[in-house]
Amino acid sequence: MKKIILLISILFVKTTIAQTPEEKLAAAGILLPNLSAPVANYVNVVKTGNLLFLSGKGPSDQSGKYITGKLGTNLTIEEGYAAARLTAINQLAVLKKELGELSKIKRIVKVLGLVNSSSDFYEQPKVMNGFSDLMVFALGDKGKHARSAIGTNTLPFNMAVEVELIVEIEN
Amino acid sequence: MKKIILLISILFVKTTIAQTPEEKLAAAGILLPNLSAPVANYVNVVKTGNLLFLSGKGPSDQSGKYITGKLGTNLTIEEGYAAARLTAINQLAVLKKELGELSKIKRIVKVLGLVNSSSDFYEQPKVMNGFSDLMVFALGDKGKHARSAIGTNTLPFNMAVEVELIVEIEN
Amino acid sequence: MKKIILLISILFVKTTIAQTPEEKLAAAGILLPNLSAPVANYVNVVKTGNLLFLSGKGPSDQSGKYITGKLGTNLTIEEGYAAARLTAINQLAVLKKELGELSKIKRIVKVLGLVNSSSDFYEQPKVMNGFSDLMVFALGDKGKHARSAIGTNTLPFNMAVEVELIVEIEN
Repeated sequence: MKKIILLISILFVKTTIAQTPEEKLAAAGILLPNLSAPVANYVNVVKTGNLLFLSGKGPSDQSGKYITGKLGTNLTIEEGYAAARLTAINQLAVLKKELGELSKIKRIVKVLGLVNSSSDFYEQPKVMNGFSDLMVFALGDKGKHARSAIGTNTLPFNMAVEVELIVEIEN
Repeated sequence: MKKIILLISILFVKTTIAQTPEEKLAAAGILLPNLSAPVANYVNVVKTGNLLFLSGKGPSDQSGKYITGKLGTNLTIEEGYAAARLTAINQLAVLKKELGELSKIKRIVKVLGLVNSSSDFYEQPKVMNGFSDLMVFALGDKGKHARSAIGTNTLPFNMAVEVELIVEIEN
Repeated sequence: MKKIILLISILFVKTTIAQTPEEKLAAAGILLPNLSAPVANYVNVVKTGNLLFLSGKGPSDQSGKYITGKLGTNLTIEEGYAAARLTAINQLAVLKKELGELSKIKRIVKVLGLVNSSSDFYEQPKVMNGFSDLMVFALGDKGKHARSAIGTNTLPFNMAVEVELIVEIEN
């Protein structure tokens, strides 16, 4: 009996306290993709001091295909939320490649989210919550960031959202 | 007679030198509102080192109601200027809540201003001057910042402007 | 004969190794313009720590006239590329004025590029390559940056692009 209680305690601790961001994502069935470096004269991330500045990314799937379209025209808020969530997964993949371990993230500092929108669509924050919710799911309070959610009339490849961010890392 | 000159001198020094940003704002009848924290997974401000990154805010009044509309469609430059000025007041309220005293601001470093615009409206800088002028009124030379003023086809809640900023604080 | 080889060697070293960014630009016939300070309550650049935050600039020529128009409506990708390249030259002029020598640049950290676009134009990255290519031409690997390329429905003065950036400088 004592052994069983001990076992349950260990499992409980393991699942609620000791989980790394990678373990949390894996437990939710979220795979971090292998993202290629840009083919032009820029890079995915630049480090200065203990800050990482990440290039804007969009909602590409494992095959590199984007979720495309405009909110208010041919995408629902739910589809936009899913696109923003996928973008967060892609940016975590950039961070994983840069840092080795996501536990080296001290704080997601600042997020700028652009939402491909018709001129009468005003719910960009609900779309960008897909990005913010995934960050907090993976990183807890370290994932809470300052944020701007903005509409725009078009984005590269007609992708639904584009998000750039600034991240503070541990020394 | 000497007493009167002394009194005038004291008043002069008080009003021109010793005024805090809060006193300057109060003297102009500007009240800093109580802003609520976001209800989603992000926050109004994140501190890293001696920099504060502030979330994008818009021209909400004391009741939380926004100045809405597009420049070039249903808002004049003067109305846009007033909206940008109100947004500056709201961001100062965020800074006041974070810092306790606005005198802890060392410099407004960088401002990104989005102006809700029709496709043929090109006067975003004149609109954003409402933000910049208020910052310099309250903070003097510390309020002078690098700035981008940009148009966009839509913003959350159809608000007239959205402004985010980076602020350096005293150690 | 030895003298000639020595001379060729010196010339080779001079042109491939010892060139400053200013020399590279001059050799390509690129002149850095004299940019005036903004007439409103903001500035071209703010320094905090070893970072410079630059205001958004556009493709103005030596006389101050902008390349105007929208990609997808009345500008080709090639014309947009040239506008982004000219904007890079203008931002290097800001940096030259601030730093004295462009060799004090440690890294172009982050670039945000806005492209004046019709709602069905999706090639903003190809336009912004004009900015990135010039930076890497002038600064080599130090010119490689994190980047977001974004469309928008309008920009100040109807200019074709607007670009802001963050630069790390040597101590």
